[in-house]
Amino acid sequence: MVGQRFIQLLENHPWFEVAWVAASERSEGKRYAEAVRWKMKTPLPANAAALTLADATDPSTAPKVVFAALDSGIAAELEPRYAAAGRIVVSNSSALRMQEDVPLVIPEVNPGHLGLVSRQSWRKQGGMVVTNPNCSAIGLVLALAPLQERFGIDKLMVVTMQAVSGAGYPGVPSLDIMGNVIPYISNEEAKMEEETRKLLGRYDGTGVTLAPFAVSASCNRVPVEDGHTESVSIKLLQPATAEEIRAAWAGFLPLPQQLRLPNAPPQPVIYETGVDRPQPRYDVDRGAGMAATVGRLRPCPVLDWKFTVLSHNTIRGAAGAALLNAELMKAQGYLD
Amino acid sequence: MVGQRFIQLLENHPWFEVAWVAASERSEGKRYAEAVRWKMKTPLPANAAALTLADATDPSTAPKVVFAALDSGIAAELEPRYAAAGRIVVSNSSALRMQEDVPLVIPEVNPGHLGLVSRQSWRKQGGMVVTNPNCSAIGLVLALAPLQERFGIDKLMVVTMQAVSGAGYPGVPSLDIMGNVIPYISNEEAKMEEETRKLLGRYDGTGVTLAPFAVSASCNRVPVEDGHTESVSIKLLQPATAEEIRAAWAGFLPLPQQLRLPNAPPQPVIYETGVDRPQPRYDVDRGAGMAATVGRLRPCPVLDWKFTVLSHNTIRGAAGAALLNAELMKAQGYLD
Amino acid sequence: MVGQRFIQLLENHPWFEVAWVAASERSEGKRYAEAVRWKMKTPLPANAAALTLADATDPSTAPKVVFAALDSGIAAELEPRYAAAGRIVVSNSSALRMQEDVPLVIPEVNPGHLGLVSRQSWRKQGGMVVTNPNCSAIGLVLALAPLQERFGIDKLMVVTMQAVSGAGYPGVPSLDIMGNVIPYISNEEAKMEEETRKLLGRYDGTGVTLAPFAVSASCNRVPVEDGHTESVSIKLLQPATAEEIRAAWAGFLPLPQQLRLPNAPPQPVIYETGVDRPQPRYDVDRGAGMAATVGRLRPCPVLDWKFTVLSHNTIRGAAGAALLNAELMKAQGYLD
Amino acid sequence: MVGQRFIQLLENHPWFEVAWVAASERSEGKRYAEAVRWKMKTPLPANAAALTLADATDPSTAPKVVFAALDSGIAAELEPRYAAAGRIVVSNSSALRMQEDVPLVIPEVNPGHLGLVSRQSWRKQGGMVVTNPNCSAIGLVLALAPLQERFGIDKLMVVTMQAVSGAGYPGVPSLDIMGNVIPYISNEEAKMEEETRKLLGRYDGTGVTLAPFAVSASCNRVPVEDGHTESVSIKLLQPATAEEIRAAWAGFLPLPQQLRLPNAPPQPVIYETGVDRPQPRYDVDRGAGMAATVGRLRPCPVLDWKFTVLSHNTIRGAAGAALLNAELMKAQGYLD
Repeated sequence: MVGQRFIQLLENHPWFEVAWVAASERSEGKRYAEAVRWKMKTPLPANAAALTLADATDPSTAPKVVFAALDSGIAAELEPRYAAAGRIVVSNSSALRMQEDVPLVIPEVNPGHLGLVSRQSWRKQGGMVVTNPNCSAIGLVLALAPLQERFGIDKLMVVTMQAVSGAGYPGVPSLDIMGNVIPYISNEEAKMEEETRKLLGRYDGTGVTLAPFAVSASCNRVPVEDGHTESVSIKLLQPATAEEIRAAWAGFLPLPQQLRLPNAPPQPVIYETGVDRPQPRYDVDRGAGMAATVGRLRPCPVLDWKFTVLSHNTIRGAAGAALLNAELMKAQGYLD
Repeated sequence: MVGQRFIQLLENHPWFEVAWVAASERSEGKRYAEAVRWKMKTPLPANAAALTLADATDPSTAPKVVFAALDSGIAAELEPRYAAAGRIVVSNSSALRMQEDVPLVIPEVNPGHLGLVSRQSWRKQGGMVVTNPNCSAIGLVLALAPLQERFGIDKLMVVTMQAVSGAGYPGVPSLDIMGNVIPYISNEEAKMEEETRKLLGRYDGTGVTLAPFAVSASCNRVPVEDGHTESVSIKLLQPATAEEIRAAWAGFLPLPQQLRLPNAPPQPVIYETGVDRPQPRYDVDRGAGMAATVGRLRPCPVLDWKFTVLSHNTIRGAAGAALLNAELMKAQGYLD
Repeated sequence: MVGQRFIQLLENHPWFEVAWVAASERSEGKRYAEAVRWKMKTPLPANAAALTLADATDPSTAPKVVFAALDSGIAAELEPRYAAAGRIVVSNSSALRMQEDVPLVIPEVNPGHLGLVSRQSWRKQGGMVVTNPNCSAIGLVLALAPLQERFGIDKLMVVTMQAVSGAGYPGVPSLDIMGNVIPYISNEEAKMEEETRKLLGRYDGTGVTLAPFAVSASCNRVPVEDGHTESVSIKLLQPATAEEIRAAWAGFLPLPQQLRLPNAPPQPVIYETGVDRPQPRYDVDRGAGMAATVGRLRPCPVLDWKFTVLSHNTIRGAAGAALLNAELMKAQGYLD
Repeated sequence: MVGQRFIQLLENHPWFEVAWVAASERSEGKRYAEAVRWKMKTPLPANAAALTLADATDPSTAPKVVFAALDSGIAAELEPRYAAAGRIVVSNSSALRMQEDVPLVIPEVNPGHLGLVSRQSWRKQGGMVVTNPNCSAIGLVLALAPLQERFGIDKLMVVTMQAVSGAGYPGVPSLDIMGNVIPYISNEEAKMEEETRKLLGRYDGTGVTLAPFAVSASCNRVPVEDGHTESVSIKLLQPATAEEIRAAWAGFLPLPQQLRLPNAPPQPVIYETGVDRPQPRYDVDRGAGMAATVGRLRPCPVLDWKFTVLSHNTIRGAAGAALLNAELMKAQGYLD
């Protein structure tokens, strides 16, 4: 699903062009159009359709910049191999996200973490690996970033209701999820907890110190096609009113918006005032699927504030995230 | 939906028989079979089908014990009227739940609160009102009760994923919920927060003191037919290990189970060990829909422990709750 | 739902502008933004939002051209009243569709039937009523029209699987349709059978003779948001090969496409070659929701050929249908 | 799914006991409880849970009677092997259904076809293979059998809306079917057409002559968990009124009901008078999932009559079908 989103989002991209696609040996040599079971709602772009699949285990024919949407186990092996072969790997995989010298980046949140690549041994060959976070972490961290900046975060809890597209294809069997809730997604809670702290951690020019606050995540799968909805409670370091919090979100116009990166949404965090919003049905495509929509800000009897956040899990949460990382990298000269 | 569940659960009841049904004036005089749009999956019981609907605004023809499943606004007017006319009202409505002299009871949790009825002015006429909690509170409080008893509760947070049957019929339009999550249910969060504290409050023979801990609830509607799933985080007053908590649930065999009340499930709280359980699909009907199923007990980085609880919202959470209240009342002589 | 689709489709229309909205007396005087529960996925257009609702029972303030999306009973009373007051009523209601002097029109199929308006008594006041067919008939008839033209139709059977949005809002309760099929939609089968025969009937300058072939429709509701899927079997008057039939569909470029009406899809009938297509998930928005997608053409052991057709029920099947009728009428001078 | 249904339905069976389970070599030697991902809503029966899985490719340890729920390709190889090893194979697979000497049986419809086994070469070793039809054919043929007997069938068309459980597990990906209709199920239409004609064919003591009428099937997958709903149109050889047809269904009490076979539903074809019935939600479990429910009998403008039929696809349509076949075989001495 993420690979297909890459192909879809890269069609007509002003800066990048899909020049090469790779898959497992089983598909090598086939044309992309033959090998793929296209699940996007827009037609398969003609230029990608015509490409011949390379063997993903061999980086020798790959272009300079490679978007990677690999299973974690495979990514752990292949991403370093590509970087060692001088490729710039913009990865959506979880394999290297928490590695000390690998930037885990949301352009609106921690663009400076890109500096970590200078520590990567692959730089000698001209390669590097840059990652984006898990689909369930991105919307949350977009909503948290302006609060951390203005008020500081003391601790937070989040319960997710995640869409089935987050599990890829074929992914979740219909018998398991139709009319059901599955209160478990393998490794998801640990990823949310640690990635949130790395994304909001401090980079001192050498390494990233994880943010010192506690994060507790509970992850559930629900019968929704696209869009992760999350119920969040947060305790801040400094007191804040509801108005101040909404103002922090409304005023959040960081680097990608200033740079007008092609896939940066005009407003990265949108506060929706409807009493029963955000909802996947109405809000998942806000900002072309790249915005996080927040709503229902209200006091929390246990921590300080509660709210709901929603974001598109395969656009902002995966392919669009990597693409925006690549756009930031290009704007900052990392791809030169 | 709740009224129909009453009819369904009372078929073949060893102690009670449906002798009288009432509805709005519009339906008065019709036979129940004509007036109802039967939505249960078992056939409409013949004896109820044949009953003629009375006018609910007039208690004069009502039997001694009346089960009430009324909209809150109507209940606020009619329940006192029935009690004043000497009827014992076993109510599923929220109207009087938080009134100081009205017991809010889960038989496994706070049977002693029934004593509150002695303060009701309606006792002079032989009437009384006893209530059960909101469908989203019951499963939660069943899971909390043994923890409070053994370890004490300091604070807790709960995020619900609630089934559509909780909204009655016609209830939630399909266009609003198919493939969607609605992060809002009117008044539900306040009810969960205050009812939980009354249910777990202390009754001193005169009144109920709300439990002194903070409760934070966030309520979501999901496309599930029956069964409210809830992600819970809790801080205890005394430290407890996972084994001790599971033992508290396993050993929870309170009064209704000791009395073998007809609708008391053999085990009121079932711990399910499967990594991805409980799920509505598999667990909603445990204990004939009267048990709460708990799973995924694990440490919480913010409070102490996290777990998931599931219960059937129209059986344990509504009609079955009232029926078990009536059974308890009968066993304790309140219906004599 | 249909009213909202009108507002949505009319935003930025090159020829028409929403100048006036009306509703029941209950909403009269409110601004549209206050009165509506907006259920479209694009934002409520600002110009419509600001309009004040008129009382729909009084045509005196209405503009010359009025789009009507009324319940059938109300339409039967109000549409003639508007026409008698000199308004051109472009209606999506079923009330007058089968009336002898009222055109029932799909611009690609029977634009000439518009001539029927000359018989309407309302012409004296400058008014008229023109209707479009039921949402379940339009996709079917678009697929049939080129077959009737080239090969003639002897008889046909159709079984529908219809989306919930066809029932309006609140429409189908979620409890009735989640995980279910309802094999009945009130009056739908009769409408499909008679409207198909009127649409494909012969207009001789005076009246429309219903097409002489038998139509059998069976209508089912399924848990789909938008898009009616229909399994069709057909017997032709002249033998045709699969290639000839597909060629008839591919070559179907009738008047609205020749006139390049703003909402005419480039290709009104699209044959999709995928073995498991068309599907609502992928094909409902083809031609901006105005095309019918056909697939799975194969021999029928009972009649001649079987195929599946899909169309968007609230765009091509309702608001878009009326809008295209109005565009045709404007192009042909009926609105002058 | 079908294998699990066998285990579920055989628990507490009065005649049969699960003594042996087999699977692919990969699972051989594991206990059933470890190997299975149990998807039934009742608990895994203890006696089956404790059984050790045998290697399905080797019949040497198998008991005399073997229920088979194998993929077609594997069944084509293994079922003859088991029969040649003297086993009585009661199969739900499609592999041998249409083979000339293999009975395809619904006990209520064509019990006499069991006689075909006398032609099987495997009888020399004491083995045989008996099959039941496809899940989509059984409900249809149950409804057709009394009509064929009383009035004769000239031709018929059927359009199915089939549940996802019919595709097994993991089966249909949720992304493919949530909120969608898939108008295609591989090989399903051919199976329905030919199996219907074999089931209703004439057995002359030597072979089965396919019923001489034309059958046209169109198969669709819909987001329903259990229960295939089918819209049927039929032309009879002799005229019949609606009353006569309903009387034929009501009076249909064939051999399994006369013999009171353990899994024979009291009434195999139930006519439901509700205008919008049958529906999976309410009717799928009629007769413990072994009855076919029929409704909406009405005239068809193209053939004679239209109706809707529903049956449970993994009980009556698969495991229950094979089990009833075995019960019939035992009652008639085939298992001695």
